[in-house]
Formats: sequence, structure tokens, C-alpha cells
Amino acid sequence: MKVHTETIELKTNGFPDIIDLSHQINDVLSKSGVINGIMTIFVPGSTAGITTIEYEPGLLKDLPALCERLAPRGVTYQHDEKWHDGNGYSHLLAALFKPSLQVPVLNSKLTLGTWQQVALVDFDNRPRHRKLIIQVMGVEE
Amino acid sequence: MKVHTETIELKTNGFPDIIDLSHQINDVLSKSGVINGIMTIFVPGSTAGITTIEYEPGLLKDLPALCERLAPRGVTYQHDEKWHDGNGYSHLLAALFKPSLQVPVLNSKLTLGTWQQVALVDFDNRPRHRKLIIQVMGVEE
Amino acid sequence: MKVHTETIELKTNGFPDIIDLSHQINDVLSKSGVINGIMTIFVPGSTAGITTIEYEPGLLKDLPALCERLAPRGVTYQHDEKWHDGNGYSHLLAALFKPSLQVPVLNSKLTLGTWQQVALVDFDNRPRHRKLIIQVMGVEE
Repeated sequence: MKVHTETIELKTNGFPDIIDLSHQINDVLSKSGVINGIMTIFVPGSTAGITTIEYEPGLLKDLPALCERLAPRGVTYQHDEKWHDGNGYSHLLAALFKPSLQVPVLNSKLTLGTWQQVALVDFDNRPRHRKLIIQVMGVEE
Repeated sequence: MKVHTETIELKTNGFPDIIDLSHQINDVLSKSGVINGIMTIFVPGSTAGITTIEYEPGLLKDLPALCERLAPRGVTYQHDEKWHDGNGYSHLLAALFKPSLQVPVLNSKLTLGTWQQVALVDFDNRPRHRKLIIQVMGVEE
Repeated sequence: MKVHTETIELKTNGFPDIIDLSHQINDVLSKSGVINGIMTIFVPGSTAGITTIEYEPGLLKDLPALCERLAPRGVTYQHDEKWHDGNGYSHLLAALFKPSLQVPVLNSKLTLGTWQQVALVDFDNRPRHRKLIIQVMGVEE
């Protein structure tokens, strides 16, 4: 049984930036040597989330529109009244989407569907420098 | 330490189909032999999710109504403009609910509440053949 | 490889009660002896969830307002028509936020951001006595 953890650094743009993590997660899985187990993808910080989506141009426009419907930017947020950073909606969306995702590893492959990509969604209202934690836990035989 | 993974096949109906997975997860837990650890329930694909709910007839009507409020079917989605499969809202709901759930295993039992069932929610707009990944990782003593 | 699981008891107030779990999770991590691995925080029951949020007074008001927008209390829920406990919206919010959260453990520390706290959100419409399951799985060296 083995735990293999890597920290990945990424730059993101303004609200919302949706980044396909396929390359990063497959690279970490390969390095881990794990054959059966679980991968965790985690984003530290309170204005971003991790989920899966079919990473295609239509949904890259639809997901921001969904976010606007769930936590509109035009609403007054008490967070902004207090801290004046204007990203109250980013915090709420991050709490809703949550920062952690787990994907099983079976026979050295992630069990994702063909049209299902793991994505970082950065809800913040400005470019950010993000660190991601990608961890694989499992057996090597 | 042991990793036990099973693939379960299921047929689902149209939007949204909510399926109680209690039987399947207890069966996999029993076969795994794991006494303390974690179970992961994962659905491959980008139009379904896994969550917990009190599986009773009232909420089986309320959850679809919630979905309709979050991602209405009458809205124009860029996904549908491009691919013409009419399930843009299904993709958005799946990204929001997410495809993975973890439940701790303690003394050979899942730590779910009495009225808390693990459910597959298929948000797609047509019947689907789904595969679920149910994995138990932990110790056998 | 080790699995360390603790059950924590908590009292919560009415809708919604947002409780910072920082003290509890750090305490369990310390007792576990795990250096690299994963922590799972899980709430049994179908009217509460676990997420992360910047635990500050503004967002403690904004998150309830988000919940009211997602699943308004004034709407008729079939759950309430059948069971008359008036917490249909609590069940829906719990299904959306989900009861489980995973945070990687790296070099004996949780990989949370500085302004990112793990929180229990109790969506129920009355005070509850809650049990939380906090589990750490990983290696001790």
C-alpha cells in the first residue's frame, strides 16, 4: 500500500476559469505506480472547486451561466460589505462545488467516462496562482 | 490493507432517474471483507451524479423540481446549440452534484444515517446503460 | 498503513447552523499519527452537509441567503405534504451539498488554504444532536 502525493502549480484567469486537468492527473497516476486504489484531486483555497465535466466549448459557456444563476454577481453580499474584495459570489460557488474530488483507479486507469474530464473551476474575480494537491493511494500489484 | 473494486451495471430511465443503491453497496461491502476503511461510489459519465437522500416518495418529486430550478430545461444552452442532443442541463447538474461519494466503513458497517440512502441520480434526457464503480479500501482486522 | 476513525458529537441550532470544525479535525489528525494520507469528514443524516468556507461573519450570512435562493422555504415540497415536518428544503440542500468531504494529509498537515475552514452545515429546521465521523487513512512514516 502506497501514498503518492504531488503539488501542481497553475495560473488561472478571472471568473470563472475552467481548466482541464487530464494531463496532470494522468501524469501523477503514471508516476505513482498504483494499480488499484483512489485518486484525490484537491484545491486549497476558498474560491475554487474541482468537478468533472465534458470539456467542450458549449459547456465552457454554459457553466459560467449556471454560476451566474446560482450566485449572481449583481447581488449584495455581506462578505463584500465587510472585506470589499468583490468576490462574495466566488466563495459561495466554491462552498457549493467543493474543493475535493475522488476518482477510483482500476487496473492502472482512472475510471472516468470517455467524455468526462476532471476540471479545476476557479470562481475568483481575478487571476490567481493556484496549487493543486493530487494524491494517489492504493496497491502496486 | 486491501482494495476491493466492483463494477455494477444498471439501466436508467429519463430525466431524472433516482436509484437507491443500498442493496448494491451493502453487497460489495460484505464481499470486500473490509472492517474499517472507506467506500467510494463513482459513476463514469458526464450526465449523472452520486449523493445521499432520504429515499421516500415526496423527495423523489422534490429533487427533480430542485433540478428544474437550478438548471431549467427551457433555457438555451450552448452545449445543445453545438451538439443538438438537448441535454445541456443534464451536464450542468452532473457537474454540480459530482460523480463521486465517500462513506466511511466502521466495524464492518457504513456510517450512514437510518434515513440516508446512497443514490445514483441520472440527469440525462434519455434511458442509459450505466456502469458504477464501487470500491472499498481498508483493513480486514 | 493505518485507519483511525473517531466519532464526534455536536449540538446544532436551527436553519442553517454553520460550525467550524477546525479544532476537531486537527485534534483527530494529531491523534491518528498519520503523516501522509487522506482525511474524510462525514455527517450521518439526510439534512446536513460538509464543505469548506472562509469562516467569517459576512459569509455566515451569505451562505444562508444562497440556500434560500437554491431551495426557498416558501415553496411547497411533497416531502412536507407527506410527513409534515416542514424540512423538505433541508433534505434538498443536504443532497446538493453532500455529507462527505476529503482533505489530503501531507507531512502531518491538512492541505487546506489559510482562509479555508472545514464546516458542518446543518440545514435542518430545528436543533439537532449530530454525530460526525472523522477518519484518517494513510502511512505513519
